Amino acid sequence: MAEHMYPRKILEYMEGFLISKVVFSSCELGVFDVLLGAERPLSAEEISQAVGASLDGTQRLLAACTGLQLLNTHQDNGQVLYSNTEQASVYLTRSSPVSLYQSIQYSSRTIYLCWHYLTDAVREGRNQYEKAFGVSSKDLFQALYRSDEEMVKFMQLMNSIWNICGKDVVTAFDLSPFKVICDLGGCSGALAKQCTSAYPECTVTIFDLPKVVSTSREHFVMEADQRISFHEGDFFKDPLPEADLYILARIIHDWTDERSIELLSKVYKACKPGGAVLLVEALLYEDGSGPLTVQLYSLNMLVQTEGRERTAAQYAALLAAAGFTNIQHRLTGKIYDAVLGLKET
Amino acid sequence: MAEHMYPRKILEYMEGFLISKVVFSSCELGVFDVLLGAERPLSAEEISQAVGASLDGTQRLLAACTGLQLLNTHQDNGQVLYSNTEQASVYLTRSSPVSLYQSIQYSSRTIYLCWHYLTDAVREGRNQYEKAFGVSSKDLFQALYRSDEEMVKFMQLMNSIWNICGKDVVTAFDLSPFKVICDLGGCSGALAKQCTSAYPECTVTIFDLPKVVSTSREHFVMEADQRISFHEGDFFKDPLPEADLYILARIIHDWTDERSIELLSKVYKACKPGGAVLLVEALLYEDGSGPLTVQLYSLNMLVQTEGRERTAAQYAALLAAAGFTNIQHRLTGKIYDAVLGLKET
Repeated sequence: MAEHMYPRKILEYMEGFLISKVVFSSCELGVFDVLLGAERPLSAEEISQAVGASLDGTQRLLAACTGLQLLNTHQDNGQVLYSNTEQASVYLTRSSPVSLYQSIQYSSRTIYLCWHYLTDAVREGRNQYEKAFGVSSKDLFQALYRSDEEMVKFMQLMNSIWNICGKDVVTAFDLSPFKVICDLGGCSGALAKQCTSAYPECTVTIFDLPKVVSTSREHFVMEADQRISFHEGDFFKDPLPEADLYILARIIHDWTDERSIELLSKVYKACKPGGAVLLVEALLYEDGSGPLTVQLYSLNMLVQTEGRERTAAQYAALLAAAGFTNIQHRLTGKIYDAVLGLKET
Repeated sequence: MAEHMYPRKILEYMEGFLISKVVFSSCELGVFDVLLGAERPLSAEEISQAVGASLDGTQRLLAACTGLQLLNTHQDNGQVLYSNTEQASVYLTRSSPVSLYQSIQYSSRTIYLCWHYLTDAVREGRNQYEKAFGVSSKDLFQALYRSDEEMVKFMQLMNSIWNICGKDVVTAFDLSPFKVICDLGGCSGALAKQCTSAYPECTVTIFDLPKVVSTSREHFVMEADQRISFHEGDFFKDPLPEADLYILARIIHDWTDERSIELLSKVYKACKPGGAVLLVEALLYEDGSGPLTVQLYSLNMLVQTEGRERTAAQYAALLAAAGFTNIQHRLTGKIYDAVLGLKET
C-alpha cells in the first residue's frame, strides 16, 4: 500500500461534473452576456442584479469561473470587479458567431440527465431515453424529437458544433470537383453554409425529415441563400436526390453496422458515377487507445442512440461494403474528422 | 473575432461530467474489484461477465478508462487484456483501506443529481434538496438523513475522505498536549481513529445524533477500541461534554456565520481553560482566487447546505467572536486544512 500517494488525478475526475455545471449555469444565467454587454468590468452585485440571481450564489459562481480562468478579476478600491476572458467572450456568449451556448444548453439539460443512467446503459447495452425522459426509444429520432422544443434544441446543438469544427471538416478534402452536394440529415444547414462558403461553385440540398426542414427554414436558413435548398424525406424510406457528393455528418455514428450499410448502399445507388460520399465523424485511433473525447462520445452514443464511434478502418469497411472505393480519411486535429469514398466512373 | 482560436479548455470543461460518470460507473459495476481479484489481466469479455454487464457497453467503458489512465492494456495474441493501474487498485477498489469508493457512490447518486439544479441554487441563493429529492430542507440533517440508507451513505462518504486526508489534518498541529478530545459531529469515527493512532495518550469522544451514533457503532467502530467512546446529542441543543480539545471537521462549513458563532460559543464555554478547538475545513485563499476545488465545494455547500467554504481569516473571525485566541491555520496541501484556536488559561 503506497501511503505516500495521493489520488490527485482521480479527485480531479470526481469533480469533473462540478466544473461542467459551473460552465453550464454561468452560460444559462447569462453571466458572460452581461459582461460582454457592459463593456467594463462589473461587481458581483451588478452581475447578480443583471442576471436576476442571489448575490451570495452569484459570488460563489463568479469565484469558480475565476478559478476556471473564464473570468478575470480586477481590484477597484477594495472591490473585486469581473470581466470575461477572451475565450469566454468568444465561445460562451449567446451572440458570438462561434458560440457554444446551444451545445452547452443541450449538454446541461439533456445529456447530463441521460448520463445519470450510464451504469444501466453499460449493464443493458442500450440507450436510457426511457429512464431519463419517460419516452420510448424504439424510433430513435422520434425520441430525440419528442417535442418541437426538444427538436429545436437538438438542431441548435448540431448548429453550434459546426461553428467551431465545420470549416475544417469541409476543407479536409478538396471537394471543389463536386458541384451538386446533398447533405443527408443536414439539419440546421450549418454545414451546408460552410460548403457554399468554401466552394463558390457548389449547390447544396439539405435532406431531412419534413418537420426538421420546416424548423430549419423557420429558425436557421432564413436569409435567401440561392445555393442552398431543402428536400423533405426519411433517408431510410424515401428515394434520395441525385448528387455528385453526399455528406453524412454525424449520421453513421447513430446507427448499427447493419443499418449503416443499408443507408450507405442506398447512397451508393443514388450517387453519380465519379461522385463521392463524405462521412464526418470523430475517429477513434485504430488501437482503441484514444482520443479520450471520442471514447467518451462512444459511451454517449450508447447512452443516447443505437450507434457508436468508430475507427477510420471501421468506417472504410462500411463504405467498402456499400460499394465505395479509394477510401481515405483526414484528421483535422479538432473533434470531427473526415472520411471520403468514391464511386468509380 | 479570433477565428484561429479553438476552445480546447472549454470543451474539456464541457466533458467533465462524462469523465466523472465513467469513473463512477466503473466503480459501481466493480470493474476495478474484478481486476484486483483476478490477479492477471482480463479480456473485455471476462470483465463483462464478471460484472454482469453487456459486452458492448463494457468494451466502451474499458476504452474510456484506458483513456483516463485508470486501466493498462496488454496485447495477447491479438486480444486486448486489461489490468488496473496502481491508482485504480489503491483508490477505486472497495476493499482498499484508502478506498474512495464510498465518496464516489455519494457523488454519483446524490451530489450529481443535486447539481442538476445549480442554476436554481444560484438564482435563489439556497439549497435544492426539495427539487432533487422531494424532501424539505428546513432541517438540514433531517434532509441529509432522510432515510437510514441515505444516512449510512452519507457516513460512508465522511469515512472515505478521511482515509486519504485524515492523518494530515490531525497532525497539521501537534495535538499531543490535549488528552481528552471530543469530536463534534464525529460521525463514523474515522477522524477519531486517526487521532488515537497519531496520539497514543489521548481518548476521543464522538459526539453525534443518537441515530448516527447507533449506526456508527453498528457499521464503523465495531472493534472494541477502548480509547474511543460515544456521546449522543444535538450539538445545538444539548450540553457538550467537557474536553481539552474539540474537533469540528467539516461542521462549520454547513452553517451560516450566525449559527457557527452560536455553536463555537457553546464549545468555548464547555472547553477547559488551556484547551482548544480544531476546525478542519477546505480553506479558500484570502483573495478568493482559489483553490478551484474549494471554490467548487463552496458552490456545493450552496446546493446542499446552509453554509459555505471560507478563508482562514473568516474562520479566525468566527473563532474570535466566540472567545478563542491565538488562532493559527496550517495548510496540508491536500483538500482539507486545519485552524486551531485556544482558550486561555
